[in-house]
Amino acid sequence: MAYSQNVGKRPTKIGEDSGELDLLRTIRRRAARGARGRDLRLGIGDDCALLRPRAGEELAVTTDLSIAGRHFRLEWHPPEVVGRRTLARGLSDLAAMGARPVAAFLSLGLPKDLTVVPDKTWPGSNSSWVDRFLFGLFDFAKAYGVPLAGGDLAEAPVPLADIVLVGAIPQGKALLRSGARAGDLLFVTGALGGAEVGLKRLAELSNPEVSWPPPDQKWHDALSTQLHPKPRIQQGLALRRRGLATAAIDLSDGLSTDLAHLCEESDVSAIVQADRLPIAAEASLEQALHGGEDYELLFTARPGTRIPRTIAGVAVTQIGEITTAEHGRPAVMLATGCIVEPLEPRGWEHFSAG
Amino acid sequence: MAYSQNVGKRPTKIGEDSGELDLLRTIRRRAARGARGRDLRLGIGDDCALLRPRAGEELAVTTDLSIAGRHFRLEWHPPEVVGRRTLARGLSDLAAMGARPVAAFLSLGLPKDLTVVPDKTWPGSNSSWVDRFLFGLFDFAKAYGVPLAGGDLAEAPVPLADIVLVGAIPQGKALLRSGARAGDLLFVTGALGGAEVGLKRLAELSNPEVSWPPPDQKWHDALSTQLHPKPRIQQGLALRRRGLATAAIDLSDGLSTDLAHLCEESDVSAIVQADRLPIAAEASLEQALHGGEDYELLFTARPGTRIPRTIAGVAVTQIGEITTAEHGRPAVMLATGCIVEPLEPRGWEHFSAG
Repeated sequence: MAYSQNVGKRPTKIGEDSGELDLLRTIRRRAARGARGRDLRLGIGDDCALLRPRAGEELAVTTDLSIAGRHFRLEWHPPEVVGRRTLARGLSDLAAMGARPVAAFLSLGLPKDLTVVPDKTWPGSNSSWVDRFLFGLFDFAKAYGVPLAGGDLAEAPVPLADIVLVGAIPQGKALLRSGARAGDLLFVTGALGGAEVGLKRLAELSNPEVSWPPPDQKWHDALSTQLHPKPRIQQGLALRRRGLATAAIDLSDGLSTDLAHLCEESDVSAIVQADRLPIAAEASLEQALHGGEDYELLFTARPGTRIPRTIAGVAVTQIGEITTAEHGRPAVMLATGCIVEPLEPRGWEHFSAG
Repeated sequence: MAYSQNVGKRPTKIGEDSGELDLLRTIRRRAARGARGRDLRLGIGDDCALLRPRAGEELAVTTDLSIAGRHFRLEWHPPEVVGRRTLARGLSDLAAMGARPVAAFLSLGLPKDLTVVPDKTWPGSNSSWVDRFLFGLFDFAKAYGVPLAGGDLAEAPVPLADIVLVGAIPQGKALLRSGARAGDLLFVTGALGGAEVGLKRLAELSNPEVSWPPPDQKWHDALSTQLHPKPRIQQGLALRRRGLATAAIDLSDGLSTDLAHLCEESDVSAIVQADRLPIAAEASLEQALHGGEDYELLFTARPGTRIPRTIAGVAVTQIGEITTAEHGRPAVMLATGCIVEPLEPRGWEHFSAG
C-alpha cells in the first residue's frame, strides 16, 4: 500500500485556502519536479518503484525513523528543519558506506491538524505544517540529487516519518564497520558536539524567558549546525574511491556510542585522544564525546595511508587509534594527558535500559 | 541510524524473566536464524544492508506503514497477527509487480510497556507484545523466504511499523498498473470481502456481550482470512513469467478504490459485473466491492489470452472488462443485471477528506 496507490483518491484538503489540493498528489507532483535519477526506472504511481543499478554495482539500503517527541520536538524544530533532518539521517548512512544516493522513500504519519492551514504549531504561517515539512525535505533532496521514489501516508497520533535511502556502490567496495584492524589510525571529519549545542539553542529560542535575538555570531553558528545538517556524501565517496579507509561509520548517536559499534563489528578496541578532538564552537568535551546528530564520518585507515587534511572542503582530524581487543572484548578508551580510562557509550539511546 | 547501528548498545530489557535480553540483539539473532537470501550480501550490523541483484534484474521497492488504531487494533489483533499482516502488506505489493522477494526492512516504534512481560495488552501471555509480534513476522518471513535485512527501532506513543520490501524482476518485465487497454478483460484471484468480514469477527471476539465460541465453521473461516493473509507472490510470478497480464494491482484498499487506481494509471475505464464477483463466504456484495485487505491480485489480460481457472492453487475469475475512458476521464462502472451505474471508490481512506 505504497502511496503510489493512494494517488487518485478523493482529495485531502491541505488547507482551506489551497482548495482541494490532495496531499498525495502534492507529494507526487513535487517528486516529479524534484531531482531526477537515471537509476530510477519507475517512481511514484505503482505498487512499487523500480530501480535499475548500473552493471557491476550493488545497492545499499537503510531506514530511519523520526518520531515527534523522540527525534525532534514540534515546538522546537521548524517543520522545514524536520524535513531536512529526516532525509539527512538516511543520507548520512549512505555516506558511511561510500554510496552514491539513488532514491529515497518516505512513509509519513500525521495528525490531521498538521495538514491544515492555519498551522497552530507555528502560528502566523500561511502554509500547513506538512507543506513546510515537505518543502524542507524536497529542497534538501534536490541539493543532494536524490529523487523521492515512493512511500506511504497515514493518519497518526503524532507526526512521524520513516525515511528509506537506497544508494549504489561498486560490488564489494562498500566501506564497512567491520574492516578496522589493530594499528589503524582513527579519523573524524568536521567538528563534534555542534548539533547538541544547537539543540540547546533551539530549546532556548522556544523559551520566552530567554532573551532573543541572542548576542553573538557563535550562538548563531551553533544553532545553524542543528538547523542545517550536512551528510558527508562527498567525503564518503572520496574515501571509498581513493581507497583511504579500512572501516567507517557515521556519527549519529554520538562518538562514544558509534565508535563502540565500529569496534564491536571489527572486533577491536580503540583509544581516543581527548586533546585531539575537533570540538565544535561553544561545545564542551562531553558534548563532543557523547552528543548525537553531528552526521560526521568516523573512519579508520592503515598507518601508512596518507590522509588529506581536508576532503571536499571538510577538515579531517586524527583523533586516536585502533588497538587489539583484550580477551576478545572490544573496548573504547579515552586518553586525557597521561590518564587512560574507559569511555562509556553515553550517546543517544533508542530505548533506555530498565 | 538503521538499527544495525544500535546493536551493541546497553541492553534493553524485554521482560523481567528474560534477563538482559536486548531487543535489538533479539531481532538480529532472529534475522540470522531466519530466511536466507543469496541476493542479500550484508544484513543487519552496518550502516546499510547491501543487496546484489542478479545480472539482468532490476529491484522493486515498496514501503507500508501499519499504525495502531489505524491499520490494526491492539485490543482486536493478537500481536502475531499484527506481525504477519505488517509483512503481508509489503509482500502483496511485490506480488502485484510479479517480483521475487529479496529482503525486508522493519522500522518499529513501540511504547516501552509493549516490550515487557507480563503483557498487559494480552494478559496471561508469557511473552511481551513485541516478542509475539516478532514471532509472527519472522514466521511469515520464513514461509515466504524473505530475510530481514535491517531497519530501525524507537520509542513511540503507539505501536507502529513501517515495512520495506525489496524484490527482483527481470529488467523491463514488471507488471505495471499502467498497461491496461480498452478491450482487455478484468480478472481477480481468490475471493473478495473476506478480510472485512474477519475484521468484524475479531471485533465481536473482543466484545464480552457476544457469545463465544461462535457456532459454525463459516464463522471461523471468515476469521481466518483476517488472521492469515496470503499475499499472492506465486500468482504474481506466474502471471509475469507466462506473460498473461497487461496490468496488475493488489487489492489492499478495496476493489472499488484499487480498480480506480489501475484505471487512472492506464487512462482507461472499467466495468465490473456484479454477478461475476467471487464473494467470500459470509461477505456481502458491499464488502466484496469496498472491503480492504484481501490482498488478492486484480489484473487485466488481452481478450485472446488463455487465462487458467486456477494459478498455483488459487481460483481466477473474470469479473469485467476494460473500456475507453470517455472524454479522457477514467471511470469505474458496476453492472447489476441491466443496470449500469458508477462504482464510487469507497475503499479504505488514509486521510478522509475534510
